[in-house]
Amino acid sequence: MKPVSVGICGLGTVGGGTFNILKRNAETISGRIGREIVVTQVGARHANPTCDLTGVSVTDDIFQVAKNPEVDVLVELIGGYDVARELVLTAIENGKHIVTANKALIAVHGNEIFAAAEKKGVTVAYEAGVAGGIPIIKAIREGLAANQIDQLSGIINGTGNFILTEMSQKGRDFADVLKEAQELGYAEADPTFDVEGIDAAHKLTILASIAFGVPLQFEKAYTEGISKVTPEDVKYAEELGYRIKHLGIAKLTAEGVELRVHPTLIHESKLIAKVDGVMNAVAVHGDGVGDTMYYGPGAGSEPTASAVIADIVDIARTFDANLEVRPAHLGFRPESIKDLDVLPIENVETSYYLRMAVSDHAGVMAKLTQILSDRDISIEAMVQKEAKGDAANATVVLLTHEVKEQVMNEAIAEIEALDDVAGKVSRIRAEHSE
Amino acid sequence: MKPVSVGICGLGTVGGGTFNILKRNAETISGRIGREIVVTQVGARHANPTCDLTGVSVTDDIFQVAKNPEVDVLVELIGGYDVARELVLTAIENGKHIVTANKALIAVHGNEIFAAAEKKGVTVAYEAGVAGGIPIIKAIREGLAANQIDQLSGIINGTGNFILTEMSQKGRDFADVLKEAQELGYAEADPTFDVEGIDAAHKLTILASIAFGVPLQFEKAYTEGISKVTPEDVKYAEELGYRIKHLGIAKLTAEGVELRVHPTLIHESKLIAKVDGVMNAVAVHGDGVGDTMYYGPGAGSEPTASAVIADIVDIARTFDANLEVRPAHLGFRPESIKDLDVLPIENVETSYYLRMAVSDHAGVMAKLTQILSDRDISIEAMVQKEAKGDAANATVVLLTHEVKEQVMNEAIAEIEALDDVAGKVSRIRAEHSE
Repeated sequence: MKPVSVGICGLGTVGGGTFNILKRNAETISGRIGREIVVTQVGARHANPTCDLTGVSVTDDIFQVAKNPEVDVLVELIGGYDVARELVLTAIENGKHIVTANKALIAVHGNEIFAAAEKKGVTVAYEAGVAGGIPIIKAIREGLAANQIDQLSGIINGTGNFILTEMSQKGRDFADVLKEAQELGYAEADPTFDVEGIDAAHKLTILASIAFGVPLQFEKAYTEGISKVTPEDVKYAEELGYRIKHLGIAKLTAEGVELRVHPTLIHESKLIAKVDGVMNAVAVHGDGVGDTMYYGPGAGSEPTASAVIADIVDIARTFDANLEVRPAHLGFRPESIKDLDVLPIENVETSYYLRMAVSDHAGVMAKLTQILSDRDISIEAMVQKEAKGDAANATVVLLTHEVKEQVMNEAIAEIEALDDVAGKVSRIRAEHSE
Repeated sequence: MKPVSVGICGLGTVGGGTFNILKRNAETISGRIGREIVVTQVGARHANPTCDLTGVSVTDDIFQVAKNPEVDVLVELIGGYDVARELVLTAIENGKHIVTANKALIAVHGNEIFAAAEKKGVTVAYEAGVAGGIPIIKAIREGLAANQIDQLSGIINGTGNFILTEMSQKGRDFADVLKEAQELGYAEADPTFDVEGIDAAHKLTILASIAFGVPLQFEKAYTEGISKVTPEDVKYAEELGYRIKHLGIAKLTAEGVELRVHPTLIHESKLIAKVDGVMNAVAVHGDGVGDTMYYGPGAGSEPTASAVIADIVDIARTFDANLEVRPAHLGFRPESIKDLDVLPIENVETSYYLRMAVSDHAGVMAKLTQILSDRDISIEAMVQKEAKGDAANATVVLLTHEVKEQVMNEAIAEIEALDDVAGKVSRIRAEHSE
């Protein structure tokens, strides 16, 4: 069979890894599918010292790759929104299949891009966009296709998980670990995307769509970062038998879709609570299969390239067939996508960890518990720590059962108004189910 | 599009689950692929009280299903070797695709069955045969297709993992937990297949083939059960920071393929060491992606049915296309399968945990360590427990670095010949890398 011809746009970390693995493992890959994959052209402004480009056409104009009649598959690894969108749409218009690692592009412009691809009869594949080397898109769209998936939760940002793991294992504080992560190259100079949960929300948006069959609705995702998590919270959570992880959580409920990224207490007995360091994991629950989990490196040159190439391989294997042999872009055929509402965070029901400083005298606990019981918020666990040394206040830590966020907001406002409570109540959501 | 017509042979636990999910989630499934899947005929000798077979043709002659011109896909869920083989070959001869959960059939007769299917232009799919609901076949053959996979290890028998978990968490002994597992329905009346590692070896054989591109060679797998693991071993291993799991391990080395199922010490920091109870997990290492792991229920009605249906869905989606759009049966095209040797266990290099009873006087340790150092076996950790109460002997526990099994056999023979050592040396292999 005629080789499949690939054009790579962007020859940075992931682009270089993709080029190098395609070369190194050419025999293994063609042995799997009975067809060669050849890199015909590279569009990049800078050379990559790890790549030997001998015999490959190189251009600094990526749009030349998108229009090159000899390219079958355009691999978009330039990142960002606007130029990437234009590049991908141009390549689609020119009849090329697309492989991308760009979760921001898919989460924000996916609906438009997929529609263009379907009109043109080409595929847009994005396995590398979510959880790096873990084949999670394939697992959900194909491996769990029998299931009504009702819930998924993921550690889908390695930087955030590295920071929380260090805080947990070494009692360090957020700012200190972030600085180290930046020095190690795990975190960007501007860490907002990672630590504020935007990157995770991009990935979660994609996962929720393919799991539940709903359109991409990134703008409705609730996003809360980890910068306010303190070493004290980590320690108290552990005393209660929990770990704090920065989870992306999506649920399909009778009221609508939950789509939220925030620090989350997870019981230490759950496998996902034990996923440490820069590693990623996604837990998926289906009505038939029950609980499953997928674990691996969420970033890095060759791990991400592994997912990029898996997509190229799928396209190469189905290259001569009708597009319908490929899974639908969003897991469901366009006519079966359900336009379900994303719930505002105020309408989400979850459990809460609350930490507050209270005056160390009788009667405070009675007032606190009264405020909660007035709203039918039941308490699962409570820890009270006496004031240490000169401190005027004791610390109270509570773990509640499930309650609607709006009701919890009212309870917290009333608690903070008590004379006996100093300052703000720290609140972290908790998941009992996964 | 015309619905895909399925005939189910065997309506027991998995067959019933398959029938019921196909009915319950019909809309979700057809929404994913744009095509209906209809059960046209069921071949079973007994009814399944969970299944409403109204409108479905039922026969007690499974070969009628294999020859039914209205059946596109035959789902083989009768289990066993000979009749299942005949049924599958008959259905292939009649041009039907096959979906099976029968790992024994694939591990033992797979080479023959795949050759027949390729000749006839049909697919034989067996995702449900390995690790129940975990889409591990898909992950390896497709999700990790970019990689040279060099190593995998799996907890791929839920019964064995349940027994070892109970021994670890409650200090119970093997026979006691086995009895409970039989009462709970986790273990068969004849537990040989599960606890002696035969079932795990069937699954490992399949995983190794699709990972490395080698033929199925079940008869060369090394198999050792868990019946000799004692609560003491579990306890000493934990003192050294390890858990004992019944692992199936496959490695691709310069000398050949390792294919072995045995109790294994794994360091507690590894995620797979934390997979407890009846759950399954498979860790896979590829040269590009690094370490990944896949976790979920390894057995049960609907979890296994989830995998059966994933295969049916794949066949339905590619139904009108040439067979080449489907992954190759063994992950690699037949002409690319490499006939590599499976190493005899004597030639495998691994680490060892050794436990022995020794006379409690000076000089014993010197003799022991001399025997090891004579063979360049270095010691990673050692624990000595003094004799308790009336016991004449102290216990010595050793953890060694990697050494060839044959050399360790000689060392153990020499140790057992010492006057100061009472009885046999207990030996359990250890994995540092996974």
